[in-house]
Amino acid sequence: MNYSIIRFILCRVLEVEGVFLALPCLTALIYREKSGWAFAAVCALCLALGFVGTRKKPKSQVFYAREGFVTVSLSWIVLSLVGALPFTLCGEIPSYTDALFEVISGFTTTGASILPEVESLSRCSLFWRSFTHWLGGMGVLVFVMAVLPLAGGYNMHLMRAESPGPSVGKLVPRVKHTAQLLYGIYLALTMVQIILLLLSGMAPFDAFTMSFGTAGTGGFGVLNDSAASYTMFQQGVLTVFMILFGINFNVYYLFLIMKPKQALCCEEMRTYLGIIAAAVLLIVWNARDSFATLLEAFHHVAFQVASIITTTGFSTVNFDLWPQLSKTVLVILMFIGACAGSTGGGIKVSRCLVLCKSVRKELRSAMHPRSVGRVRLEGRALEPEVLHSIERFFAAYMIVFAASMLVISLENMDFGSSFTAVAATLNNIGPGLGAVGPMENFGGLSALSKYVLMFDMLAGRLEIFPMLVLFMPATWRK
Amino acid sequence: MNYSIIRFILCRVLEVEGVFLALPCLTALIYREKSGWAFAAVCALCLALGFVGTRKKPKSQVFYAREGFVTVSLSWIVLSLVGALPFTLCGEIPSYTDALFEVISGFTTTGASILPEVESLSRCSLFWRSFTHWLGGMGVLVFVMAVLPLAGGYNMHLMRAESPGPSVGKLVPRVKHTAQLLYGIYLALTMVQIILLLLSGMAPFDAFTMSFGTAGTGGFGVLNDSAASYTMFQQGVLTVFMILFGINFNVYYLFLIMKPKQALCCEEMRTYLGIIAAAVLLIVWNARDSFATLLEAFHHVAFQVASIITTTGFSTVNFDLWPQLSKTVLVILMFIGACAGSTGGGIKVSRCLVLCKSVRKELRSAMHPRSVGRVRLEGRALEPEVLHSIERFFAAYMIVFAASMLVISLENMDFGSSFTAVAATLNNIGPGLGAVGPMENFGGLSALSKYVLMFDMLAGRLEIFPMLVLFMPATWRK
Repeated sequence: MNYSIIRFILCRVLEVEGVFLALPCLTALIYREKSGWAFAAVCALCLALGFVGTRKKPKSQVFYAREGFVTVSLSWIVLSLVGALPFTLCGEIPSYTDALFEVISGFTTTGASILPEVESLSRCSLFWRSFTHWLGGMGVLVFVMAVLPLAGGYNMHLMRAESPGPSVGKLVPRVKHTAQLLYGIYLALTMVQIILLLLSGMAPFDAFTMSFGTAGTGGFGVLNDSAASYTMFQQGVLTVFMILFGINFNVYYLFLIMKPKQALCCEEMRTYLGIIAAAVLLIVWNARDSFATLLEAFHHVAFQVASIITTTGFSTVNFDLWPQLSKTVLVILMFIGACAGSTGGGIKVSRCLVLCKSVRKELRSAMHPRSVGRVRLEGRALEPEVLHSIERFFAAYMIVFAASMLVISLENMDFGSSFTAVAATLNNIGPGLGAVGPMENFGGLSALSKYVLMFDMLAGRLEIFPMLVLFMPATWRK
Repeated sequence: MNYSIIRFILCRVLEVEGVFLALPCLTALIYREKSGWAFAAVCALCLALGFVGTRKKPKSQVFYAREGFVTVSLSWIVLSLVGALPFTLCGEIPSYTDALFEVISGFTTTGASILPEVESLSRCSLFWRSFTHWLGGMGVLVFVMAVLPLAGGYNMHLMRAESPGPSVGKLVPRVKHTAQLLYGIYLALTMVQIILLLLSGMAPFDAFTMSFGTAGTGGFGVLNDSAASYTMFQQGVLTVFMILFGINFNVYYLFLIMKPKQALCCEEMRTYLGIIAAAVLLIVWNARDSFATLLEAFHHVAFQVASIITTTGFSTVNFDLWPQLSKTVLVILMFIGACAGSTGGGIKVSRCLVLCKSVRKELRSAMHPRSVGRVRLEGRALEPEVLHSIERFFAAYMIVFAASMLVISLENMDFGSSFTAVAATLNNIGPGLGAVGPMENFGGLSALSKYVLMFDMLAGRLEIFPMLVLFMPATWRK
């Protein structure tokens, strides 16, 4: 293991975090809040540590997949450990465990909260809380690669370990340029949303924070009722942008380079939009009695479906009160998740699509034993290695799920609550059902459960393996 | 599709069912019960249909995998459609849908019941109900192959479609002899259990029926409280035999041919016994307050764990009252299931073992990118094709699970009940939790839910694909 390069990249990450911590400091200045000192102190700490740590260049440039995995998972852990400090320092979240839960939930764009209400928090805390979504959405290391000189052959290993989806699509030959492109599209879309929300009359603070939460498909809001008290138009903007941020960013790149036809042919996007449409229709039909008019039903159901499938987690109504079929649809959407290469979590539409296709292929080959058709995605036959990795992802996913369920069961909540607590964190959604439903929070859980769910959030965001690698003794051998 | 040979085998299956229907007729004679006429009538019907249908030999001997799949799934459907008739004819289960549910639950060795209580049933009905477990446990077509001349190259296709597990182990070169060996071991073990139960002072009727339920890992009892009112020794015998019938029958074959060392090395059996031990210890620790003494705790927990992991479904206590951790362990055991090549259901220990190993391999190869180790089971490297088929099985399993959950959710039961209703039928267990818990029954569900769960029971027993093949239009093309 090449420790020196890991140390070097971790310090780069701290530097970046320090720079971004200036934003809540600025917020504190604008709103003249005292809590700002905590953010300023941690900001200074990060910059100092980062400056010292990156003075000495790494001795060796050796960087393989295992260094990539370890660097990414440690970066996310360090980022969270430090990012949680201001909340505890300023006393707004006194327990450090709770603060850590909140920040990991932020960076992993989960949106599960331990806070019973958020309106008593200072604006700088709320800003940082929402901004972690934006930073975590596209990935911290992708950002580091986009802006800092990290020459060497290891960019691809980092990108592969941090980016969601079964295979990493480099948009352009150089990883650095790909990272810049991704962040450019991301920033532009976020700006459009902020402007639209401002035009709709939303307060600037809300427009910024809600847009961060949407862009990262996170789900932290700044009001106690999540998104319920915004106007229908504002909720509509959120719905549309949640869906947009759940689409594979390759599609936007294809639009950028003037290939709209290819962009619209994206099989994963079509499936994703198809699933949304089907889920909305099914739930509107099933839960029609919960709404006064059909329009209202469509509006709220579309919002909730978009919020759950993209794993954002905003809510406008308490969907825990809907009939069981609607809730089951939502739980299934939790698992499907958004497109690969988007900011959303879950298993990802492309993985589910490949699984369905391989079942169809198995059935076909039962009919015609000599057929040797391969599973195809986006018009290309899939390499057996990609298929294998999807299948191993599923296996690891289920093992982590079952193990987490066991520990969470010690809480003695009902089966639905335990199950959806794990589902909502491992898929980076936020709210579950029952005791962890949209109107409840994770604050009442034991510290043990909170740490398990923190692990699940990180495992969900980094797609399991980078986190598991940390627990292998072989990883730490020289 | 070679329809003539399918027709021929279906009629052979009816003949066999007719012969076995003589057993409840005999029971009716012994206990002088009027309901016997219904069994006698259906028995005669089966024999007549079977006799007529097997007069004409099939025109062509062409028999491929698709004929194998279709024959097996249709055989099980026809077997159930006919096997349910006596219950409705004699009026003991007036609704044919309910009778069908009960008989499918019997043949698939699920043990889920629509009856609120069973003691009002006639003894001949109870006998037939339990006997379906015994017949379904090892497989009807395996029986046909063992006793009837079915010369031709198609035996292997039938065996593969009907036998549980990722790959079929032919014990001896000829399929017919393998089938005979399997049924021989099965019959011998059942006899030993019957004798032990008789020696313990159990009534002969109970000894026979409970042994059928154990051997097939079914779970239908003849008393309203399942196995709760038997003595501790009798419950202990049931525990041991449930575990024995959940072991891969290859192990017994190895003992038979005097290779005890090889038999004890069976990796799947060791894992299976290890899981049982771990689950018992964990639940005893977690649910210790539910029992008066530690011995009692061990006794009841061992019974319940054996009952759930082997997917039998007998119960001595209401485990729905245990703490949530214990219930979660039981739900996880429901999915793991028994060994491949046993009479138990579920996903099977060997499949789970392979999945865990492939995750470990993925982690290893993240450490050493150039390692090309293969996943090994029972000391042999697995063929990639076997790995693939396991993974496709999982995919199909999850799709069927999610689709069933959607329909069952229309019942508006809580999440835990809906989830375990599907889990308990698709894994051929019997009782779930909550509204379908061990002290409840499936009688209150709508006809739609019942048909979906019937499909799940058949899909679980035949391992999904044979049932899905029936729905492919390509299957029915010439």
